[in-house]
Amino acid sequence: VIVLFTDYGVIGPYMGQLERVLRTQAPGIDVITLFADAPCQEPQAAAYLLGAYWNEFPAGTVFLAVVDPGVGTDRAGAAVRVDGRWFVGPENGLFSIVVRRAEDEARWWRLTWQPDRLSATFHGRDWFAPVAARLARGVPPPGVEEPLASIERPEWPDDFAEIIYIDGFGNAMSGVRASSVPEGAVVSVAGRTVDRARTFAHVPAGQPLWYENANGLVEIAVNRGRADRLPGVAIGTKIRIEAAS
Amino acid sequence: VIVLFTDYGVIGPYMGQLERVLRTQAPGIDVITLFADAPCQEPQAAAYLLGAYWNEFPAGTVFLAVVDPGVGTDRAGAAVRVDGRWFVGPENGLFSIVVRRAEDEARWWRLTWQPDRLSATFHGRDWFAPVAARLARGVPPPGVEEPLASIERPEWPDDFAEIIYIDGFGNAMSGVRASSVPEGAVVSVAGRTVDRARTFAHVPAGQPLWYENANGLVEIAVNRGRADRLPGVAIGTKIRIEAAS
Amino acid sequence: VIVLFTDYGVIGPYMGQLERVLRTQAPGIDVITLFADAPCQEPQAAAYLLGAYWNEFPAGTVFLAVVDPGVGTDRAGAAVRVDGRWFVGPENGLFSIVVRRAEDEARWWRLTWQPDRLSATFHGRDWFAPVAARLARGVPPPGVEEPLASIERPEWPDDFAEIIYIDGFGNAMSGVRASSVPEGAVVSVAGRTVDRARTFAHVPAGQPLWYENANGLVEIAVNRGRADRLPGVAIGTKIRIEAAS
Repeated sequence: VIVLFTDYGVIGPYMGQLERVLRTQAPGIDVITLFADAPCQEPQAAAYLLGAYWNEFPAGTVFLAVVDPGVGTDRAGAAVRVDGRWFVGPENGLFSIVVRRAEDEARWWRLTWQPDRLSATFHGRDWFAPVAARLARGVPPPGVEEPLASIERPEWPDDFAEIIYIDGFGNAMSGVRASSVPEGAVVSVAGRTVDRARTFAHVPAGQPLWYENANGLVEIAVNRGRADRLPGVAIGTKIRIEAAS
Repeated sequence: VIVLFTDYGVIGPYMGQLERVLRTQAPGIDVITLFADAPCQEPQAAAYLLGAYWNEFPAGTVFLAVVDPGVGTDRAGAAVRVDGRWFVGPENGLFSIVVRRAEDEARWWRLTWQPDRLSATFHGRDWFAPVAARLARGVPPPGVEEPLASIERPEWPDDFAEIIYIDGFGNAMSGVRASSVPEGAVVSVAGRTVDRARTFAHVPAGQPLWYENANGLVEIAVNRGRADRLPGVAIGTKIRIEAAS
Repeated sequence: VIVLFTDYGVIGPYMGQLERVLRTQAPGIDVITLFADAPCQEPQAAAYLLGAYWNEFPAGTVFLAVVDPGVGTDRAGAAVRVDGRWFVGPENGLFSIVVRRAEDEARWWRLTWQPDRLSATFHGRDWFAPVAARLARGVPPPGVEEPLASIERPEWPDDFAEIIYIDGFGNAMSGVRASSVPEGAVVSVAGRTVDRARTFAHVPAGQPLWYENANGLVEIAVNRGRADRLPGVAIGTKIRIEAAS
């Protein structure tokens, strides 16, 4: 299966154009859209989101992942292999958190192949999708393997204490794994302390809460309401986590 | 074919995560998204919407339907069989109108199977999708058949005189079947009487109208305009239908 | 492959209902959504958009294209063949620019077949999708071939100097092919001159620019910003192109 993870938007032709390449060049392989609205033009936030969602897909999955503010410049393209999955896209840090979450293997190749006709603004269609189709067909990555250290971002923390995504219910995901929050720690966002609960139905209507979401992240919600309407809560808002005193 | 009917939103990873389970556990079976924006957290409105859209799909179709404000509480899960189709999701009334529209058969099973790892907030992925995949493969429902009366909602009317859905054109669907409107009846919404027409092109530009939509519901529209911009028209707005005097 | 190009919206059931017909009547054939948000109820703008996106799909592709403000009136239905692709939808000018961009062949058939049950508002599902399914299975168009001149719109220009589409990044596409812009010409929109660049990363953050988009159209963007937030830039805004003096 090929999984799409992009910031191209749920509107517009771009996801369908990726699918055109994949259906043509990797016929018979399923294509699933995971995110078409990954953090827009923000590779760092997107890296933590991808880092929480990739490993529910089985070994053999190919992720075509594009959040690429540097499209058209000379930033490199990468094929990354982590625990049996492939990841293809721009080399801008997008895969650094997946690499850090690896249990068994993490390797990467700088892409050396480029298409004869490469548009200035749509490398997803012209460059990365053909590579993803090849990998899905079992062909080795068309590139040169590089030392892993060269795509790591050691300056990025293990958990990213910001709101990185807001979903259709208005729930606000952070880049922090709930498993990293010490027991009894106080979580606050935009100056407001929010209690932990198992799920929104466990607090009164209208009350904010945080819980471990279904992919392990700290997520802020409001029962029967929307967290994104709390004052100050938006993409990029800092989360504070303080150990119990 | 497996049909998705949820309020998960057209943004976000949730539809793709359902599809991951279905593609993995029911390989080779088509997956179609019917609604990703069913009435949000409103099982009653959603029940009337599902009740208008299910029967254009052929016998053998499996509906994975999730509108589930009680996720994480002890509300039951259900597999429902109506006229050759399967429906899987929470037992909160969501299937009660489909059952009422049955022509031949209506039966239901309370799910007894649960996965070993069940997240608190995403029963669609962890619980209902695996059951839908099984049913699509022809496996019997993993549950106990219960008397039909126990999922009926006798207090819910046959037609629901509210706006239950607004589409991308701004057209406002009600939960009322056009076939139930007496000839010559006066239809009004938000204090405004709207005339019946065959389609929007049959009234002057800017004029509101109602018509029987392509799935049999009373729908309010404005020719070359948007009904959702009429003052007072929104999800939950009451529709009045008065017999001609 | 069958490609969907409609203004039905990314929300709502309509795309899924088209897919239901296609999966049932053309089993085993891929279905790709190219646009679900083509210019709403605007066949002329939609015609220029389709005219820029169709020819990256290979010969044999069937386009089911519906932008149809006249649904329910007596406007005709058409099956059009251009350079090995099929196009099915309303005869309202939607295919006239594709026809004009033909390199080898352009023919059209007025549809004579109609389904027994045709809803007033959803000809896409009831009429055009079954025809698209037939064409995808290799069956000839169920209609009568007509002279090409009768679907041409000679009064429509070769390039349409208006904003016809705004994507999820806020980039504004025009109906003008970049290849038609004379070298050194001055491009302006809403009273503001915008310089040409290869891609947004080549101008300072916050600066507007225009470039040839990945499908050959003149597109306005703002590096690290949104062109649709420039004052006066919206669907329908005129673009001015003046030869260098």
